[in-house]
Amino acid sequence: MAPKVTKICCIGAGYVGGPTCAVIAVKCPHIKVTIVDLNADRIAAWNSPDFAVPIYEPGLVDVVRKARGRNLFFSTDVDGAIEEADLIFVSVNTPTKKSGVGAGSAADLNYVELATRRIANVANSSKIVVEKSTVPCRTAESMRTILEANSKPNCRFDILSNPEFLAEGTAINDLFSPDRVLIGSLQTPEGKAASDALVEVYANWVPTKQILTVGLWSSELSKLAANAMLAQRISSINALSAICEATGANIDEVSHAIGYDSRVGPKFLKASVGFGGSCFQKDILNLVYLSESLHLPEVAAYWRQVVEMNEYQKRRFSKRVVDTLFNTITGKKIAVLGFAFKADTGDTRESAAITLIKDFQSERALVNIYDPQVAHSQIWADLQEASPQASLDSIKKQVTICGSALEACKDAEAVVIATEWKEFLDIDWEEAYKHMNKPAFVFDGRLLVDADKLRKIGFKVTTIGRA
Amino acid sequence: MAPKVTKICCIGAGYVGGPTCAVIAVKCPHIKVTIVDLNADRIAAWNSPDFAVPIYEPGLVDVVRKARGRNLFFSTDVDGAIEEADLIFVSVNTPTKKSGVGAGSAADLNYVELATRRIANVANSSKIVVEKSTVPCRTAESMRTILEANSKPNCRFDILSNPEFLAEGTAINDLFSPDRVLIGSLQTPEGKAASDALVEVYANWVPTKQILTVGLWSSELSKLAANAMLAQRISSINALSAICEATGANIDEVSHAIGYDSRVGPKFLKASVGFGGSCFQKDILNLVYLSESLHLPEVAAYWRQVVEMNEYQKRRFSKRVVDTLFNTITGKKIAVLGFAFKADTGDTRESAAITLIKDFQSERALVNIYDPQVAHSQIWADLQEASPQASLDSIKKQVTICGSALEACKDAEAVVIATEWKEFLDIDWEEAYKHMNKPAFVFDGRLLVDADKLRKIGFKVTTIGRA
Amino acid sequence: MAPKVTKICCIGAGYVGGPTCAVIAVKCPHIKVTIVDLNADRIAAWNSPDFAVPIYEPGLVDVVRKARGRNLFFSTDVDGAIEEADLIFVSVNTPTKKSGVGAGSAADLNYVELATRRIANVANSSKIVVEKSTVPCRTAESMRTILEANSKPNCRFDILSNPEFLAEGTAINDLFSPDRVLIGSLQTPEGKAASDALVEVYANWVPTKQILTVGLWSSELSKLAANAMLAQRISSINALSAICEATGANIDEVSHAIGYDSRVGPKFLKASVGFGGSCFQKDILNLVYLSESLHLPEVAAYWRQVVEMNEYQKRRFSKRVVDTLFNTITGKKIAVLGFAFKADTGDTRESAAITLIKDFQSERALVNIYDPQVAHSQIWADLQEASPQASLDSIKKQVTICGSALEACKDAEAVVIATEWKEFLDIDWEEAYKHMNKPAFVFDGRLLVDADKLRKIGFKVTTIGRA
Repeated sequence: MAPKVTKICCIGAGYVGGPTCAVIAVKCPHIKVTIVDLNADRIAAWNSPDFAVPIYEPGLVDVVRKARGRNLFFSTDVDGAIEEADLIFVSVNTPTKKSGVGAGSAADLNYVELATRRIANVANSSKIVVEKSTVPCRTAESMRTILEANSKPNCRFDILSNPEFLAEGTAINDLFSPDRVLIGSLQTPEGKAASDALVEVYANWVPTKQILTVGLWSSELSKLAANAMLAQRISSINALSAICEATGANIDEVSHAIGYDSRVGPKFLKASVGFGGSCFQKDILNLVYLSESLHLPEVAAYWRQVVEMNEYQKRRFSKRVVDTLFNTITGKKIAVLGFAFKADTGDTRESAAITLIKDFQSERALVNIYDPQVAHSQIWADLQEASPQASLDSIKKQVTICGSALEACKDAEAVVIATEWKEFLDIDWEEAYKHMNKPAFVFDGRLLVDADKLRKIGFKVTTIGRA
Repeated sequence: MAPKVTKICCIGAGYVGGPTCAVIAVKCPHIKVTIVDLNADRIAAWNSPDFAVPIYEPGLVDVVRKARGRNLFFSTDVDGAIEEADLIFVSVNTPTKKSGVGAGSAADLNYVELATRRIANVANSSKIVVEKSTVPCRTAESMRTILEANSKPNCRFDILSNPEFLAEGTAINDLFSPDRVLIGSLQTPEGKAASDALVEVYANWVPTKQILTVGLWSSELSKLAANAMLAQRISSINALSAICEATGANIDEVSHAIGYDSRVGPKFLKASVGFGGSCFQKDILNLVYLSESLHLPEVAAYWRQVVEMNEYQKRRFSKRVVDTLFNTITGKKIAVLGFAFKADTGDTRESAAITLIKDFQSERALVNIYDPQVAHSQIWADLQEASPQASLDSIKKQVTICGSALEACKDAEAVVIATEWKEFLDIDWEEAYKHMNKPAFVFDGRLLVDADKLRKIGFKVTTIGRA
Repeated sequence: MAPKVTKICCIGAGYVGGPTCAVIAVKCPHIKVTIVDLNADRIAAWNSPDFAVPIYEPGLVDVVRKARGRNLFFSTDVDGAIEEADLIFVSVNTPTKKSGVGAGSAADLNYVELATRRIANVANSSKIVVEKSTVPCRTAESMRTILEANSKPNCRFDILSNPEFLAEGTAINDLFSPDRVLIGSLQTPEGKAASDALVEVYANWVPTKQILTVGLWSSELSKLAANAMLAQRISSINALSAICEATGANIDEVSHAIGYDSRVGPKFLKASVGFGGSCFQKDILNLVYLSESLHLPEVAAYWRQVVEMNEYQKRRFSKRVVDTLFNTITGKKIAVLGFAFKADTGDTRESAAITLIKDFQSERALVNIYDPQVAHSQIWADLQEASPQASLDSIKKQVTICGSALEACKDAEAVVIATEWKEFLDIDWEEAYKHMNKPAFVFDGRLLVDADKLRKIGFKVTTIGRA
């Protein structure tokens, strides 16, 4: 029979652990939920009187407001929280390795292991340990070895995998009404009992038929696989967009026609200058590395294509800008509208804009950037990281951050739309045209603007996926 | 009917525009020729009372002396000159791109475009615009787009291509008696009329049958193609020289025998340590890049071989030096005679000497350089650019610039002839031998010296293209 | 008839020349032996009253003690020694070239040539010149050319090749009872006479049938070839060790079984983390470069495999460490026992430990090093050279040198045995286990420790060549 969960501890108060456990607390008033982190500043922010929580997600503040101090707690006392919990979420960072074996594609499991060792050292009673971080297949195996090598008598540890499937900007909604909750366990009686215990937690608000229980390795793999297949849809449409540009077909019509096929489905088929965000590229590279480790070079090559197509799409777009501007943009001003990796978020990780701007820099162009949400400091940090050899001063000689789209367009030769912010639809394009050099160009990397309307004003418009 | 040209403006007072338009002025007293440049120092030099013109070309001063102040003017007033001219030469720099798309092979058209935009903004009447710079095929197309996007009502622009075919050291002579003058235009009535107008200018001193009028794209391509085929002759002979060295044949005899074939012709068949100069390599790389852009990889590979053979020839020669000197030149003194890319010029662009000396440096040899014409500052600049990682101080520890050939030979193990200066024939070789280490070696990279005479003195002589 | 040798000069007082000529002096009291070197400090050390000779070799001090001042002399007067000698050993350094043609594989013959030129300039009478340095085939040819180009009348030079076959740690013993002495000469009457003269020297203590006289080129080649075939034995066993690990076979049993075959023989068949030392890799790369120079790419590829297998073995071992420690060693402490390239020497040239530690550093691990003999300064120098980009300070943040094996093991996750020092057998492993983190791992890269005994204590043991 499943053990009853009354106290939950979550190690890691970041983007995944925070919202997830806050929602659990709201939905399960009978369970005490404690979120712990070694970073005192972050915990202080979660606990701030005015709810200045360290993460921006629509609806998150309301959730915290409801449960904080009731059955939801934030603390730096990691050991205390571990000790009293029945069930522990491990929700720490797994960044891509920057050096050593697998550099550039393998995940660094250092934080996962540290958390695991902490649990092993502190625990005096049995625990259910839940992998919430994105990890490669069979990580749970390593966690078990470590827990057992360091465990005290009469402490048993059961490990579950419970990957997150949140999209930034809609995380709270995704948590309240998930497509599915996935729980993986060993197929032993003990493993299944632990799984049932976690099922019971989610069952407080998720319909049981949407809670899938599977094997431990299947669960671990499913996270990577799902993201890989999503990213692949985008790369496939982008691959078709290149054909459209060369033949005169229209990618909008093509993806619309494809999406009508019920076996493919209509979502996630929008052509663009390339996908970004913290997950897609990272998870695919993880999958690639996993395939190589398993001596499956053909499988690695297959998935690597998804990332390579994305790189190609970005490179192709920036080359199209240069070619269209008479093969040189040296000394020309380019207005880049949008810097976030997608609309409605301030997140810039792996944003296509970074690559485009870097390409423009290496062409010795001048770049004006405007984004409605991203902090200036973030933009400078991203550009600095993209050009580690250059000094920030030399970057600032080429790049300017502007306060509005119109300001960015002033004296520019071309406008490049890099993020699909709705507000760009409402720019006074007539006014923008007046202050730009002629011929004035618009490059729409997001299929956002009405090309015909702009052409009437006088712009020369280039759109992804159109000749 | 062709419009009558009475006022010519030339944008760019450099190596091409200056001599060309000066000669036009001398030959066409009825036409006012104004050469403009944004560089005030350069214009001042052209206007200096003692005719200290900024370019060294035999005969140039006499030409300037004849026409300056009569119908030849030099000025920084770019806009004024554009406004009054009927016909405008665009004769600006098109350096190879150093970064961005096509870095290392594509031409940077930035200056061409700036000049074009200037014309568009300033002109209040119709103009004939003549591409004089070396540009890739179809650049004229871009110029036309820019001119039309910015033109005022009732201004029409006709674009011509009129590539230069000058050789350094004989430019004035080449201009007075050209093999041919090539003029390209659109094959429309207006295009042909513009072409006729320029023909009429040249016809003042060039026999009409030597003025070829062709299509615009043909003209643009012909410049690159002619240089590519010239350079190819050299690479072919150099390729044969390697076979000669390996078989005991004699490249002098072989190229003499080949040159007697009237279908090949005798010129430009001299084996050497490799070609240099600002044009050959640059134009071939341009042609290679053009071929790649046109998706013609086989054609790109074909022309790239010409440059690769040249690199190989230089590498082969410096390796032969090392091998002959018992496989090591560490700490040995090597005298390099000649630094210019060919005799009778002070130009060092792409000179083979630079590569040789760099190779000797990486073998940790000591190098003595003597050149009768090249400025010391130029030599240091070239060596510094070739080894960007090294400090000039560390370079000067290995390299010394000498005041005479004999001085360079002192205590050397070997003499390397890198430029075919006539004066090297008159060196007192007996004296040189006396002060060199034994065995004393001569490496003749230009088929210049009498090997038998030197062998009698005691030298061990190695010649390009001989076993 | 062979000229009688009464005075020997040895140029180069280093690792080869010193012991060799000291033994000659002891064994031939009737011959005056003078060892010269330009390095005054080194000569002073050889002459120090307390026999603090600059090289560590068991038995060397006794040898020097016996003959120094009697018929063995050390001096900086190079010219004087050359002048009076009948026979001159050239025993200078031939390091691998770091830049220029053949960088990374060809030998730098600069010192050999300098010594040769010195002999040519100084000698007033005929000499026998003996190559003792490791040189590529046909170096003697170059030496002869130089000697003849600079020789005085009535001086003839005969060149012999007499390669050394010493193993560090047993050099004196190897000299007293050599497997064989190899002497190469031209097959002319003069060449054979010179050869006989040197034979006569060795015959004072070496049985004649062990003194092999061969052609000059054969002798030069034999040195490289012998080392190549020795190194190959190790690489072959290491290649088999990888198969053993994958199949469950045991490399100890396999090499034992192979060694029983009298056609293969039992020696030099020990699997390990890879060979090191100053000779093997250098001599094979020399052989590879020689093969390439002779246009024998197939032969070059054949021998290059020996080095590549060695690199692979090291890489494989460090990857196995990372994989076993749950795919991450970031922030973990690794104890590396042994830093010398083999036991019983302080020599660290090409030691496998350097590569392993560098790999651990790039995984961002912490490393504790303990070696019973190697000087700390040597360790820092080696690590600095291996990571030229890093500052020594940053290296010291990751690496600690410890005073004992137990100290190195404290708080470590894993122990890596990199050198087969006997004393590691006597470590108090129970004690070590107590102070290590759990699970505690041992990686035996030298087949040194008793794995079963350690497993009983609680260690998880990984051994080269076992599953």
